[in-house]
Amino acid sequence: MSSPTVRLPRYRSALFAPANQLEVLKKLPRSRPDLAILDLEDAVPDSAEAKQQARQVAREAQVWLAAHHPEQAVYLRLNAVQSPYFADDLDALTPTLAGVVLPKLERAADLAEAVEQFGARGLAHLQIMAGLETVAGVENAGELLQGPGKGPSKGPSKGAVKGAVTSAYFGAEDYVADLGGVRTAAGLEVLYPRSRVAMLARLFGVAAYDIVVTKLRDDAAFLEDARVGRSLGYGGKLCIHPAQVALSHQVFSPSPEEIKRAWALLAAYEQGQQQGRGVIAFEGQMVDAPMLVRARAVLASAEVEA
Amino acid sequence: MSSPTVRLPRYRSALFAPANQLEVLKKLPRSRPDLAILDLEDAVPDSAEAKQQARQVAREAQVWLAAHHPEQAVYLRLNAVQSPYFADDLDALTPTLAGVVLPKLERAADLAEAVEQFGARGLAHLQIMAGLETVAGVENAGELLQGPGKGPSKGPSKGAVKGAVTSAYFGAEDYVADLGGVRTAAGLEVLYPRSRVAMLARLFGVAAYDIVVTKLRDDAAFLEDARVGRSLGYGGKLCIHPAQVALSHQVFSPSPEEIKRAWALLAAYEQGQQQGRGVIAFEGQMVDAPMLVRARAVLASAEVEA
Amino acid sequence: MSSPTVRLPRYRSALFAPANQLEVLKKLPRSRPDLAILDLEDAVPDSAEAKQQARQVAREAQVWLAAHHPEQAVYLRLNAVQSPYFADDLDALTPTLAGVVLPKLERAADLAEAVEQFGARGLAHLQIMAGLETVAGVENAGELLQGPGKGPSKGPSKGAVKGAVTSAYFGAEDYVADLGGVRTAAGLEVLYPRSRVAMLARLFGVAAYDIVVTKLRDDAAFLEDARVGRSLGYGGKLCIHPAQVALSHQVFSPSPEEIKRAWALLAAYEQGQQQGRGVIAFEGQMVDAPMLVRARAVLASAEVEA
Repeated sequence: MSSPTVRLPRYRSALFAPANQLEVLKKLPRSRPDLAILDLEDAVPDSAEAKQQARQVAREAQVWLAAHHPEQAVYLRLNAVQSPYFADDLDALTPTLAGVVLPKLERAADLAEAVEQFGARGLAHLQIMAGLETVAGVENAGELLQGPGKGPSKGPSKGAVKGAVTSAYFGAEDYVADLGGVRTAAGLEVLYPRSRVAMLARLFGVAAYDIVVTKLRDDAAFLEDARVGRSLGYGGKLCIHPAQVALSHQVFSPSPEEIKRAWALLAAYEQGQQQGRGVIAFEGQMVDAPMLVRARAVLASAEVEA
Repeated sequence: MSSPTVRLPRYRSALFAPANQLEVLKKLPRSRPDLAILDLEDAVPDSAEAKQQARQVAREAQVWLAAHHPEQAVYLRLNAVQSPYFADDLDALTPTLAGVVLPKLERAADLAEAVEQFGARGLAHLQIMAGLETVAGVENAGELLQGPGKGPSKGPSKGAVKGAVTSAYFGAEDYVADLGGVRTAAGLEVLYPRSRVAMLARLFGVAAYDIVVTKLRDDAAFLEDARVGRSLGYGGKLCIHPAQVALSHQVFSPSPEEIKRAWALLAAYEQGQQQGRGVIAFEGQMVDAPMLVRARAVLASAEVEA
Repeated sequence: MSSPTVRLPRYRSALFAPANQLEVLKKLPRSRPDLAILDLEDAVPDSAEAKQQARQVAREAQVWLAAHHPEQAVYLRLNAVQSPYFADDLDALTPTLAGVVLPKLERAADLAEAVEQFGARGLAHLQIMAGLETVAGVENAGELLQGPGKGPSKGPSKGAVKGAVTSAYFGAEDYVADLGGVRTAAGLEVLYPRSRVAMLARLFGVAAYDIVVTKLRDDAAFLEDARVGRSLGYGGKLCIHPAQVALSHQVFSPSPEEIKRAWALLAAYEQGQQQGRGVIAFEGQMVDAPMLVRARAVLASAEVEA
């Protein structure tokens, strides 16, 4: 009766690699990310030549990955729709792709433009991940993520493509650069936009990927940040190093203790129901419907992984 | 000239009890909560039989409480308007009630439906507390809480019932379950929605109740969480155990030190005014209009309790 | 392609002084604030006589400051448009002013009224700083700050004056008093509105001034709070004591270390570009486009000061 059904955590990790480095791209499946993303945007130098070369490498990589790792979901991150590279980036799309990432998405009109272009090339099946990583992108997130027949009673703005977006990420580095702020270890400067993107993603039934951790070789920092992301409702993390994939899975999968506790809670609740009580005490806390929903979500996600 | 007048803290505590437990309901006034709520929703098992039995007990409890504790304000929490139980829940309403709680309220149309049903039964006087505890409920809070002639210059959406809601609560457990997030001790995962609900309640002149603390027998945790709620603009707390009522009153009433300080600040300011100064230094801080507003609010709330 | 160009930090400090104290007003330029504000609002007692006397002093101060400190940008803070003092406050405006501050701004209609009044007096050139410091002001911030042709695709509400506002501040003391909350040292109670105002200011290309620190003679507290403000995207701080100006400049100007690091990062990136890499590792972090934007902003602001 409220938001869409709890999503299963099949999007715990999305690992990026530069679209111009074929050998790196071929290794993407090794760390077993839930999603592999070939990046034509920030990971490729900002020049027409570099982008063109990367597009060719990206095509080759898509074919190779489809042949050798058909089980691996692969997305391509294009340059922003409003950038001069976008039109030519479309040539890098092959039918083997599961989806595309539209970075720095800000306006419904740009989303509509992209959808139209994909359709014109017979690629209407492509899933779209929206990169919300500018002030305008976060402010317009509701409009961009809105799906058909869901959400608030207000109608969508003109130009919005209902249900076009199936996933989204919040990009803290780009957002703070655009904002003119400063990134800090505690991250309070992005708590509001990070919270809001996860909330709107949930409202519109869109999978939400949490921010990149730029510090490499600091597992503790990654785990801590991933736990924050999970608490805020994110289902996985963008990863920029293969070692971050396993760490993401660790945080965004239920632990054996969580699974055990969820079973125990459900059993105690079931017993309470039979005795006519809707609220029970469990480990010193009052347990009612919301805790049950979470316990069931934990068990559902555990089953998927098994 | 800005928001509605500062409300007096006559809603420091709202104590819930399961609507199917007559003896517990009869004891509700013992801890002297500002509001007692008979709960037909989460505290009663999720079956037609359990709900039906609870409705009968709730009617009996209403009559008993009105006869033995006429000074006690009593509300009934119905099941969500969009649930299959709502229609029959209306039979549990008696004229002795001061109001009803509509949990998991999400859409103006559901609010309008409830208002219509109450009117059709001659119960148009019932106060309505909106439970904002899902992603959609928080996102649509502005529309749900909007009162007549107040607030931003934008008109209300179609279907909104102006001024229908007189109080609201934010439910963190349900919200986070709906969001797919994780509740933490620090609670940063709900800072944004918790802040937003209090702000919108204030904007529309609606009394705001803060989140439940599920940890029982941990007074320090309750007090700390209540102080956070008060800082965010909440005027009281939802309580799920009688012992939480006195703790709520402790936090949401001004302390003797606060009262003393408020008097001293007003006296110093008065003296400054007579000497032609609008800003004065008081205990090492610059004092001007906003601090005065707060000092006067403290003294107003203290008078109410005396 | 996203928000307006990064603004240079020429608004690191805005120092207030009571408009009724001529000698204090004359001293405003001594601490070299980026902006000096003569305050007719909260710093002047709340009576018709006191306000009238302050208006005369304010006119005299404007003339004196223009003659003796022509390099000093000077604004006048009027009483709120919706207050009984506003109409007469217009008599205190002289052509030497760079701009005005409209405190407790809440509605587009009030902004339109002020703009019309300035135009009618041949003062259409006045820059306008919006004081967002009530619940309604924060909620309506988008409408109030919206500029021509920028921002989200939704049209502005009726009554909004496009591009009228060139700067804004968030006022935490007034906001929390209006909210009915409590100010705390950590300030989490204002994190949401403080974040939102900075974000909307950025979206609409408006300079954003951060909250007042009321504690005097506590440099550490001021510096800490200013760093939080800077992280959130603010470009400067409201100051209520001359000693706060230098502290503001310290935080809102790039440090020698930041400048050095920005040069080093740009050099490393340039080298990476030449080698065909868009992403490089720098001091153990992945560096790509957003970090570059920030490095360039640091260097741009440093140049301005040199």
